[in-house]
Amino acid sequence: MIGLMRPYSPDLASAGRPNDRAELIRVAALELFAARGYSLTTMDEIGERAGIRGPSVYKHVRSKQDLLAGIMRHTMDALLEGQRVALASSSDAETRLRRVAEAHVRYHARHAAEAFVGNREIGSLDQPHRDDVLDRRAAYERGLRQLIVEGVESGRFRPPSVRLASYAILDMGMGVAMWFRPDGELSEDEVVYQYGEMALRIVGA
Amino acid sequence: MIGLMRPYSPDLASAGRPNDRAELIRVAALELFAARGYSLTTMDEIGERAGIRGPSVYKHVRSKQDLLAGIMRHTMDALLEGQRVALASSSDAETRLRRVAEAHVRYHARHAAEAFVGNREIGSLDQPHRDDVLDRRAAYERGLRQLIVEGVESGRFRPPSVRLASYAILDMGMGVAMWFRPDGELSEDEVVYQYGEMALRIVGA
Repeated sequence: MIGLMRPYSPDLASAGRPNDRAELIRVAALELFAARGYSLTTMDEIGERAGIRGPSVYKHVRSKQDLLAGIMRHTMDALLEGQRVALASSSDAETRLRRVAEAHVRYHARHAAEAFVGNREIGSLDQPHRDDVLDRRAAYERGLRQLIVEGVESGRFRPPSVRLASYAILDMGMGVAMWFRPDGELSEDEVVYQYGEMALRIVGA
Repeated sequence: MIGLMRPYSPDLASAGRPNDRAELIRVAALELFAARGYSLTTMDEIGERAGIRGPSVYKHVRSKQDLLAGIMRHTMDALLEGQRVALASSSDAETRLRRVAEAHVRYHARHAAEAFVGNREIGSLDQPHRDDVLDRRAAYERGLRQLIVEGVESGRFRPPSVRLASYAILDMGMGVAMWFRPDGELSEDEVVYQYGEMALRIVGA
């Protein structure tokens, strides 16, 4: 559950080994935003963590705000792409819902820092970045909701409420980012499959 | 979903009309911690918002840290008490789980600011406050998990996984704090009842 078991510590193993300066800076920013928050992080610290001295960090990125907007936009684009592929993978409502829920949970299991920053720092985004990210979030929720509506219309799903089922599936999946650890008791696949199962139960498949 | 629809703006209508200085300060602190974060908030600002001038705020509270610890301890105690009453209310596994889930969701629908601060600021707590709050959180999760275990043992529940069902039920309920508005489309009771229904579905009641 979100923060329920332990204080957040970003696990950035999944970030890989960045091979260019801009990507090094992005990873450093993500790490610092996750650990200390956007407002307390300075561009100097981001540069230092990325191993870049002084103002030359500005050769690669324009501002802290641009870094945050880039991270949050990238997060939503990755989630939207995962959902798009899952929706296109089948014409069967159950299979589609299972895969949409699984993709959602898998992303959150792998990208704890992105999920954490994405949820916490939406208020730190200036316009038009904020609306831009909010539009993507709305589209993501709409994609799941539309899928549930179709399942209801075809008689495959019977959720207590389409809207609340959609919210519940997304929220429980986002929670995974807060407690999942790759070296924990349950493997990523186990968690992903069981959350897919719970999503199907919620909609009454 | 958590922050998925809009940036967080604390709704403190539920805080009521505090009638003593210490409570005024606590409400002001909660408001500021929710809106700006713990680290950016100063005791001067808390005093000012509570209508108390200068250092006399320290007559009523010892420190910013004490305020945060008090808010977070109070949040967990309220959740634990709601769970205790729900567990004691019946000997029927389904009824108990429904009420435990409903109490959880009702708290989060009514206490958005507390939930937000509780989730975001656990890392801002010094010891022993941090362990103190984490212990309460663990006890809260254990209460729900134990209830699901009993339902499984008596053959009433068949969750895909006891642990994940417990996490999913708590996380989806916590998400309610992020989107529920008293003047929204769905009433508090509607949301509470439907989440109770979804919790029962998750455990396969």
